[in-house]
Parts: sequence; structure tokens; C-alpha cells
Amino acid sequence: MTTLDRLINQLARLPGIGKKSAGRIAYYLLKADPAYTEQLARDIGDLQTRITMCSICGNYTEEDPCDVCTNSSRDHSIICVVEQSQDIQTIESTNEYTGVFHVLGGVISPIDGIGPDQLTIDKLVSRVQSDRVTEVIIATNPTVEGDATAMYLVQLLAKSPVTVSRLASGLPVGGDLEYADRLTLARSLKGRVRLTSSG
Amino acid sequence: MTTLDRLINQLARLPGIGKKSAGRIAYYLLKADPAYTEQLARDIGDLQTRITMCSICGNYTEEDPCDVCTNSSRDHSIICVVEQSQDIQTIESTNEYTGVFHVLGGVISPIDGIGPDQLTIDKLVSRVQSDRVTEVIIATNPTVEGDATAMYLVQLLAKSPVTVSRLASGLPVGGDLEYADRLTLARSLKGRVRLTSSG
Repeated sequence: MTTLDRLINQLARLPGIGKKSAGRIAYYLLKADPAYTEQLARDIGDLQTRITMCSICGNYTEEDPCDVCTNSSRDHSIICVVEQSQDIQTIESTNEYTGVFHVLGGVISPIDGIGPDQLTIDKLVSRVQSDRVTEVIIATNPTVEGDATAMYLVQLLAKSPVTVSRLASGLPVGGDLEYADRLTLARSLKGRVRLTSSG
Repeated sequence: MTTLDRLINQLARLPGIGKKSAGRIAYYLLKADPAYTEQLARDIGDLQTRITMCSICGNYTEEDPCDVCTNSSRDHSIICVVEQSQDIQTIESTNEYTGVFHVLGGVISPIDGIGPDQLTIDKLVSRVQSDRVTEVIIATNPTVEGDATAMYLVQLLAKSPVTVSRLASGLPVGGDLEYADRLTLARSLKGRVRLTSSG
């Protein structure tokens, strides 16, 4: 097998990339600026050795503890609980959140054999108990597993003197009622926000 | 900028990959089998030094001349002219063609400042004259530029004792008349194939 064929096969294993896209990428790399391809190769090769997990929150980081956990200007009394490290970047991109994070490493999913012990739930509980945490925002995905994990955490943290909240579910901004699915619409009704007080 | 951010930015430069896919791929690489990521990094890094162009047909190859040009069981009297190296793989995948190839390196496109001199047309003409070539199949894309390039080659090769042909244009197999565009339909009418002789 030639280098080119092997590269195409390897690229086709990446998520969201099929055989055709892999071919297009490989031919692009053949003609690309050598400085770019060398840097890309180096970064892919170094990635796993350079990046570790933050021992506090579980985020991917090059230095342990991570930027967020060592940042004293952030509010360490609020912890936002996410499924995966990449969810942190998504939340950070809103520029609306100034607290810290906790990465569960997944969600409770009996079908996939993932119970609370496979996640970093113990660590979360001890963070909540030891630090002066006032609120835990559960930002797992609005799926069956994400909701179940949220309910589990609510029960677990019930004894702690901490507010537990969950990201609002409802209509996407800029969306259209006509295209909303029934479950989302039902949730947005249930979680409707009062605009005027009746008083 | 962290290694992860830089990698995401670099991946987002690849064709067909946006910022979100780049993020997904980067996080996939973080968790992937180290043997796989190391091989991928090595192949991306080595690609441009290992692969050169075949001095006969212009195909990408690790050994010059390429597999196809040195294969004595192929019919060297038929040359299939393609725009780019990757078109060779597409044609090879049909298992219908046993001749050799010639890569133009593009098509004539005055808007992009590409004239016949920027392509390997001289080389094609000398191949046709020196080798015992009986047919030239023009397999440029059925676009305005591809057609113009085909017409240019037809005129250029008119003096040579060689048959010049062009890939058939028409309805895609498994397609539906209803969804065919007018130009394709017009071409498939013009190029209609007779099924019975009129006696």
C-alpha cells in the first residue's frame, strides 16, 4: 500500500470524514504549504503526550491544574457540570459564564454499561463539600441519559447546602414553532417564563 | 495558543472541514489509539517528500515512472486525459479502463489566468507523436472549462493519426428524468444511443 492510500484510509477513520473527503484532504495536503503540513504532523504526533487531564475539573489541559481552575478572577463558588471536555469550549464561547467546570467524562447509561462509578461523580461531591460551592449547574445534554444523570446528581447533592440547577430546555433562538418537535415544545411550555407579574 | 487550539485551527483549513468538525476531530485524536495518531502524523509529515510526479503521465507516485506507466499488461496505445491526479483513481475504480493516463494539471480557464502553456499539453502531444498511440480519451469534467479544453485538444490533435474521444455526458445511472437539469437532458438527447437498427 502506498503512503497516499494509507493516509486516505487513516483519514477516513476520523469522525465525519468518509472515503471521498479523505481523498480530497490527502490531495490537498500533497499540494499544501510544507510548513503547514509539518506543523500539522507535529501537533497530531505530540497531542497525546502534551495534553493531560486537569486533576481538579477533568478538563483537557497542557498544564495541571488547568487555566480555568487556577484563574482567581473566576467565581469558584459555581460549578458547571458537563459531560465532556469539549462542552467547556462551547459554554465558554457564550461569554456568559464566569464560574468553574467539572467534566463527568460521560453520562449514566446502563445500556452502555456506564454507571456512576465510571464517571467523576465522587470527585464532584468532594469538590462541593470541601470548597465553598453555592451552586451546581448541570449542563449535561437534554437527552434521556443526560436527564437521568442530572436527576441522579440532584438526589446525591440534596444533603449538601448547595443550589442545583439545570440548563433551560426549550425553543432554539431564531427557530420556528412549526419546526419544533413535540418534546421540545412540551418542555418549553412547562418551563415557560413569566413576563409580567399578576399582581 | 495551546496545542489543541492550534490543531483545531489547522484542521479547519482542510477542505470540507469547518471549525466544529475540526474540534470533533481534535478531541477524537486526543482519545485515539497512540499507534494510529503517530502513524497519521508520520504520513502527513512524509507525504510531500515521498510522493513525486510521474515524469511520463504526471500522476502522483512514490516511484517514477508510476505503476500505470510501467505496467506492461496495460494498453499503452490508449491515453485517457484527466484534469487531476485524483481523477485517475476515480476512473480506475470502474475497472473498465486498461489504457494509460495523462494528467493535464488543470483546465484552460482564461478567468483564472490558466492557458494551454500552464498545462502539460505539450507533453501530451509529444507522447501521442512518439508512442504508438491510437486513441486519446478526453476525460476532463463536463464543465464549460472542461469542454473548452477538450475542444482545444481536438483541434491540436487533428493532424495526428489518432482517434480522439470524450466521455459520454447524459443522465446518471439510477437517476430520474424529473430531477435532471435541462443541460444534462439536452446533452443526453443529442448523444442518444440507437437500440435497434432501422433495417
